[in-house]
Amino acid sequence: MSSDSDLLVLGGGAIGLTVAWRASLSGLTVTLIDPTPGSGAMWAAAGMLASAAESHFGEEHHVALLSAASDRWISFSRELEGDTGLNIGYEQNGTLLVGLDRGDRLEIERSVEFQRSLGHNVADVDLENLSEVEPALLSTISVAKQLHNDHHVDPRALGRALLAALELNNVSLRTSPADSLTQSALGVEVTLGDGSVIRGDKAVVTMGAHTNFLETANPLPQIRPVKGHILRLQGPVLLKHTIRGLVHGRSVYLVQRKTGEIVLGATVEEKGFDRTVRAGEVFRLLDDARRIIPGVDELELVETSVGLRPGSHDNAPVVEWAEEGRVLVATGHYRNGILLAPLTADLVVDMLQDRPSIHQELFVSAHSHHRSS
Amino acid sequence: MSSDSDLLVLGGGAIGLTVAWRASLSGLTVTLIDPTPGSGAMWAAAGMLASAAESHFGEEHHVALLSAASDRWISFSRELEGDTGLNIGYEQNGTLLVGLDRGDRLEIERSVEFQRSLGHNVADVDLENLSEVEPALLSTISVAKQLHNDHHVDPRALGRALLAALELNNVSLRTSPADSLTQSALGVEVTLGDGSVIRGDKAVVTMGAHTNFLETANPLPQIRPVKGHILRLQGPVLLKHTIRGLVHGRSVYLVQRKTGEIVLGATVEEKGFDRTVRAGEVFRLLDDARRIIPGVDELELVETSVGLRPGSHDNAPVVEWAEEGRVLVATGHYRNGILLAPLTADLVVDMLQDRPSIHQELFVSAHSHHRSS
Repeated sequence: MSSDSDLLVLGGGAIGLTVAWRASLSGLTVTLIDPTPGSGAMWAAAGMLASAAESHFGEEHHVALLSAASDRWISFSRELEGDTGLNIGYEQNGTLLVGLDRGDRLEIERSVEFQRSLGHNVADVDLENLSEVEPALLSTISVAKQLHNDHHVDPRALGRALLAALELNNVSLRTSPADSLTQSALGVEVTLGDGSVIRGDKAVVTMGAHTNFLETANPLPQIRPVKGHILRLQGPVLLKHTIRGLVHGRSVYLVQRKTGEIVLGATVEEKGFDRTVRAGEVFRLLDDARRIIPGVDELELVETSVGLRPGSHDNAPVVEWAEEGRVLVATGHYRNGILLAPLTADLVVDMLQDRPSIHQELFVSAHSHHRSS
Repeated sequence: MSSDSDLLVLGGGAIGLTVAWRASLSGLTVTLIDPTPGSGAMWAAAGMLASAAESHFGEEHHVALLSAASDRWISFSRELEGDTGLNIGYEQNGTLLVGLDRGDRLEIERSVEFQRSLGHNVADVDLENLSEVEPALLSTISVAKQLHNDHHVDPRALGRALLAALELNNVSLRTSPADSLTQSALGVEVTLGDGSVIRGDKAVVTMGAHTNFLETANPLPQIRPVKGHILRLQGPVLLKHTIRGLVHGRSVYLVQRKTGEIVLGATVEEKGFDRTVRAGEVFRLLDDARRIIPGVDELELVETSVGLRPGSHDNAPVVEWAEEGRVLVATGHYRNGILLAPLTADLVVDMLQDRPSIHQELFVSAHSHHRSS
């Protein structure tokens, strides 16, 4: 059996595109298989690279991984923008955590205490100066905390840049879905929806919520879709920071881009493969956002969309061998697919080349709490 | 000067398409001029044919006109569907007027008293039986009244059917905008955006909110755009009736179609030619609708759109000669363009053929109150 490529990447989301790029840079010949690369969960995502704000109680074991992933982004974005000449909307304008009522204030104070205990730098904002820090915020919110170093990226621009990088590096693209994957001592074979067969030396499965649709001899890790509604608003630039709000106990965020776009999200729903945009969820997102930022009312509502985040059994990413030596899975990145993509790709490329990886331990320990309990 | 057609119709909204159809049936050769016929205010409209529910205080002088227009629809829809073989979503499932709080109840009782004084048949609904009459309604609303005979039509299906009828009747279509109109003793001449010139014996200007963009020797009646936000929801059929609600003093309506579509509207905004879908208005429509019909939350939000209703100085339709004997205007139909289209077309065809029209007086008296004051 002769291989078409050294590596087949099944899935063209944030992880698949990044793995394909980094693998091609490492000297491998790569084929990427995805009917619509750059769409899916990546297309809906807001692109927050928020290791501190994403540090939640009970997820202490994720913290080191998220921090390392966040640090990795700075050089990653420079390299991608440099290679392709494309802007990916990378910005470091910080995050404000704000709470509306007294209960929201107490909850934010509790989590900031926790974030500080993990070593994150979280500044108090004097509410008397709030209108200077973030003029668009409601003046009667009960608490505001500032994370100076949080950054974000535009996932759609990222997708375009990664596709351009793949083309520059001669990665082949097959836009038919991967139906089944088999492996032998000689290599791997993928049958596509159009009936064609592609052979490779090794394969990486990065199919997110669709991982379990792939037919394989041994079962892959169970991944479930976690539905999220996201709105896109447009207008003159309204916010100086990314806002993460608690509004009567409900979480809402707004990511402001320099283009005037605001990404408003996101619901977290266990509804299987339901991609329907529901009136009630759109209502709740708008309701929560306008309660803390009245100027939201004047923005144009450009898009309502749904993304399916890939969740593993414990919501930590799964990067491991499915078939020793030939087939890797890199999936289950849940809310943090964009943030983790560069680090996951580094680990995958190390594993493919049978090199020890400095990142391995971070991914393993993200699971350890749950696996040992 | 030789004419291309007996009649040039400038504008392809509800009025223009209907006038072109009826004029071609009367034996005239017709050219319709519109860059995107069937779009505009017509595309956004809900299609309520609601002479009773649209009878408001201070608009008594419209009542006879709206009633006649409503009666005319029954034969009109049969004829159009018969000629084209196309379904236009004509349905007569009645309207429920409902109010949420005590103030809403008082206001609805006042307007029902008024509607009854005008001869409309409005039935009381015993709130104890409400869940049988309309199971989707909130059980704690304060009042419900039923208009058994109200009907509605799907304006987009209507547009498609009228375009098909025009083709059957050999109406020419020119899809470049009409820039200017001149008339002489010999006929009329229209210059289009693409530089071409079309000649006709007579012309009808039915350009809605865009009427005053047409260059003419003498000014046409002033028409302003009245912005309305409209949402389209989709799901299993939720409602048995059209619902017109008062929710803490704000008006909202929901028109249910057999296809499962619900058209939810509509805001009334004096904002000039602003076509932006605003987050705040989408929020308010959803907020009001779900307060009286909780099941709205589960529907898919399929579309958010804006229409520009054409309003005259007194919001009554303007059907009159602009240049005696050659150029008619038929515009300013405001909220009632779909309802009035068949009657307006009858009047226009009579006027074009210098026949006395039984409808003339209805249109004149719709204005008389304001003109004499």
